[in-house]
Amino acid sequence: MSVLPEVLAANEKYSAGFGNLSQLAMPPARHFAILTCMDARLDPAKFAGLSEGDAHVIRNAGGRASDDAIRSLVISYKLLGTKEFFVIHHTNCGMEFFTNEVIRGLLSSSLETAELTSNGFRDVGKGPGSRAGEFIEWLTVPNQEQAVVDDVERIRNNPLVPASIPIYGYVYDVKSGRLIEVQEATASGRAR
Amino acid sequence: MSVLPEVLAANEKYSAGFGNLSQLAMPPARHFAILTCMDARLDPAKFAGLSEGDAHVIRNAGGRASDDAIRSLVISYKLLGTKEFFVIHHTNCGMEFFTNEVIRGLLSSSLETAELTSNGFRDVGKGPGSRAGEFIEWLTVPNQEQAVVDDVERIRNNPLVPASIPIYGYVYDVKSGRLIEVQEATASGRAR
Repeated sequence: MSVLPEVLAANEKYSAGFGNLSQLAMPPARHFAILTCMDARLDPAKFAGLSEGDAHVIRNAGGRASDDAIRSLVISYKLLGTKEFFVIHHTNCGMEFFTNEVIRGLLSSSLETAELTSNGFRDVGKGPGSRAGEFIEWLTVPNQEQAVVDDVERIRNNPLVPASIPIYGYVYDVKSGRLIEVQEATASGRAR
Repeated sequence: MSVLPEVLAANEKYSAGFGNLSQLAMPPARHFAILTCMDARLDPAKFAGLSEGDAHVIRNAGGRASDDAIRSLVISYKLLGTKEFFVIHHTNCGMEFFTNEVIRGLLSSSLETAELTSNGFRDVGKGPGSRAGEFIEWLTVPNQEQAVVDDVERIRNNPLVPASIPIYGYVYDVKSGRLIEVQEATASGRAR
């Protein structure tokens, strides 16, 4: 039972009412970019009030300021005119529940989905696994507020990011839907 | 004039009606992940029919299968149980309008936003710029369908991605809102 027919049916409905959205320009109308987590519970358009055409949205596991996220942010401001960046992590993030060692071990044992128990992730699959995970830095998050501070700092200190771009650091609370400022991150991210 | 007050006001409104969303579980309820572009015109929740809690959404400049996107996809299936992947690029993507050489040149000349003219991007800013862009592979897209095929293949061939996960390749048409299948990509991405 693939999700494909459901996704295509939803898309059919969306495109049927597309109307004036066909006229949107490429550069974000509201001149900002959000870097956030891939987590299924987060809908950045809803939690930040975005309509189609408003803002760039970059997402990865953790909402981390990876090299690829920085590539995207630089393209965002340099070619498409964004002037403010948000880094938004969230409570109860999966990245808080494992370490490099744990995921490397799980992957080397099997390529099936692990089970989350009260003692952490446990492998229930059959092998073979792969040791290719040893070569990946998984960017896990031992402390969510610190990770926001670190990510804002990493973007701030990149020589391709102009000092004129403010960078706001927030944690999204998955229990309330609220954005909570990480003050140390935002302060370090203000234009200097 | 920062967008920050507008974003926080929109968030206030969203969280006020949060209701049962506070009960959502971490693993995606519909067991799939979408990799797509950061482009402001794309709202994956709308074009693919996602509610909060349904699916992982990974986004970067171009929707490319970067190392970071693959990190995210592996976490998605191995720890959080997704069973199908979508790679969705789109028409009129900014990544089609420049090359590594162009963006490196623009960044070395200034860190202000370039202007898009009929002859391509033109720098209108004042220096100084930075040569740090020389060290980044920008993952531009000379041909959109080929890029989808390439990205699906790159994910398919990663030793950490099990053969049981189908990978569907699509291009989203920004003029109609429709998802158009890239048949060669999807075929190569089917379970083998």
